Amino acid sequence: VSGEGAWRGSAGTPVSAIGEFGLIRRLRECIAGVEEGHDPYSPFVVIGIGDDAAALSPTPGHQILVTCDIQVAGRHFIPAWITPRELGARCAAVNLSDIGAMGGLPRAAIVSLAIGPHVAVEDLEEVYRGMCGRFLDHGARLVGGNISGVAEGLVIDITLLGEVEAGGAVRRDTARPGDIVWVTGAPGSSAAGLALLQRFGGDAPAAFADMIAAYLRPQARAREGRALGTSGAVSAMIDVSDGLTGDLNHMVEGQAVGIVLREEALPIGDPLVAAAAEIGLAPIGLLLGASDDYELIFTAAPDGTEQAMRALRGVSDVAAWPIGEVIAGAPGQVLLEDRQGRRHPAGARGWDHFGSG
Amino acid sequence: VSGEGAWRGSAGTPVSAIGEFGLIRRLRECIAGVEEGHDPYSPFVVIGIGDDAAALSPTPGHQILVTCDIQVAGRHFIPAWITPRELGARCAAVNLSDIGAMGGLPRAAIVSLAIGPHVAVEDLEEVYRGMCGRFLDHGARLVGGNISGVAEGLVIDITLLGEVEAGGAVRRDTARPGDIVWVTGAPGSSAAGLALLQRFGGDAPAAFADMIAAYLRPQARAREGRALGTSGAVSAMIDVSDGLTGDLNHMVEGQAVGIVLREEALPIGDPLVAAAAEIGLAPIGLLLGASDDYELIFTAAPDGTEQAMRALRGVSDVAAWPIGEVIAGAPGQVLLEDRQGRRHPAGARGWDHFGSG
Repeated sequence: VSGEGAWRGSAGTPVSAIGEFGLIRRLRECIAGVEEGHDPYSPFVVIGIGDDAAALSPTPGHQILVTCDIQVAGRHFIPAWITPRELGARCAAVNLSDIGAMGGLPRAAIVSLAIGPHVAVEDLEEVYRGMCGRFLDHGARLVGGNISGVAEGLVIDITLLGEVEAGGAVRRDTARPGDIVWVTGAPGSSAAGLALLQRFGGDAPAAFADMIAAYLRPQARAREGRALGTSGAVSAMIDVSDGLTGDLNHMVEGQAVGIVLREEALPIGDPLVAAAAEIGLAPIGLLLGASDDYELIFTAAPDGTEQAMRALRGVSDVAAWPIGEVIAGAPGQVLLEDRQGRRHPAGARGWDHFGSG
Repeated sequence: VSGEGAWRGSAGTPVSAIGEFGLIRRLRECIAGVEEGHDPYSPFVVIGIGDDAAALSPTPGHQILVTCDIQVAGRHFIPAWITPRELGARCAAVNLSDIGAMGGLPRAAIVSLAIGPHVAVEDLEEVYRGMCGRFLDHGARLVGGNISGVAEGLVIDITLLGEVEAGGAVRRDTARPGDIVWVTGAPGSSAAGLALLQRFGGDAPAAFADMIAAYLRPQARAREGRALGTSGAVSAMIDVSDGLTGDLNHMVEGQAVGIVLREEALPIGDPLVAAAAEIGLAPIGLLLGASDDYELIFTAAPDGTEQAMRALRGVSDVAAWPIGEVIAGAPGQVLLEDRQGRRHPAGARGWDHFGSG
């Protein structure tokens, strides 16, 4: 599997043929094309692309949220499996997900690229179309960036700024004993999609299309996170970027509370079971293990259930599952309670980007 | 010249030995060490490192500035020439310079790393010490980040947020005809330092220490930019990251004005002349060409000179040189007027990160 970032090989225009400033011009034209018809300077954006720094005008009474995510060819994406436009949208989604998980509104993005010699200008334009389009869908504009060459591959690092009402940011470490633990969507699907791509490449059976889409074309639950965060019912929230157990661990690490998951409550659907059988893994291993699903985990008191579900339904038809509860008895631990009522530590702790490869 | 990012080879702890979460722990401890004694949450920082996103509380009446800069081993720095701590400080300086050039105050940074297998944990800690220390010197805190592996080398991408009074950001493209063009320090020194390192490696004659320091250990003129920006005298400002001609071009690109430099006014000191002789280049070529000096170029009406100089002197003893003026007659052009009064286009346009290598 190659990390070269070369989608079309010699068929495209190499970046070296038009130079750094030529590339910047092309990408700016490309961004302008995507953003055409949108107000070039939203109330938030005072100075956009093209100066030493962008200038942004915070909404009075709001705080600024800021997150970043670096995506490396061969590590976070395999060019042979994902189109440039999908990649751009995916890189945007990864960051949108973080702002949503704080209960915020995405506003402005800044992008750094390190580009290997085999990446074509046309493919970078497609990356930008996917990225800007996805950001625009969520109300965020591209306001700056920086470009460099690199010996090989492609690195895309996006910083996304958002806003949230002062004091309204939903932290990951504020779950309370007795809260119900919820997760949206079908966690583990992305891990299944990745495993299926590793097995079949582009020729996976059509029955697995949803799993593969979960990995290649994740939805960012930014609207859902915003609705939940402002519902008043949610005590803590995090997005699933490491995997269910890994991110649940992040919620209780160093805290006085723990989390107990109920095995019978875990959302293991038929597609996940079929995918697990195909790749020779237990469905629960896929569900609990490393998987960047960009779903949301949130906690809410039992009497906040209706309020939280109403908020979620207002913006989305994604499923939400009550998978366990926050407990006082096991500080910092994530436990799995099996169908016999026995509790043991839940498995894997998520991706380790240095653990292999 | 190697881009491996390997300062100590096998003598350090490889990142793979402690894993991604182990590395994050080590770096967080390292940051805590540098920031010890400073209020861990300045009024600006509401949520720092450790959640899906940081949360920042803008000062009422201010705008947010945001800039990013990606530094790639073998392109922007050569590990054999620069210590990890110097590298960290340099990466911070590059971004501080941009916030200063807008007239802003640095506030919060977020860092993405892509780390090759030969980089030692101890060296990354040194990078962070240099980076956090330099940011702290200018009032900015590290509030988040993201880490990945990469096949080789080291990529450091920093996004820096700052603040400026609403409407107070100093743009690069607002120079007015008749304004004097100023530059601080000794532009071209960084290019000379780089050329000397390419020639001598670590064994350059001591006479050239200042040139080499200009390249390896640039000062960010953030305080100077802030003072100039709030002086009321400055009409436009940019930092020198591409080189004098390149960045002057950025100031007039697409504008109704041009800039004429007076050759006799250019600050060509004895050290630059000696360095140019050593490396076989014309001093004026070093001065005008590609060079990331992180000095400031600014424009001010002639009757604003005293006001601008007083502001600058209030925070710094760096030299400032009136090198030319803004003219209406040559839209978008940067001209050089020689000692005989003849004008011709000024040379090179700055770095092109794809032009070579």
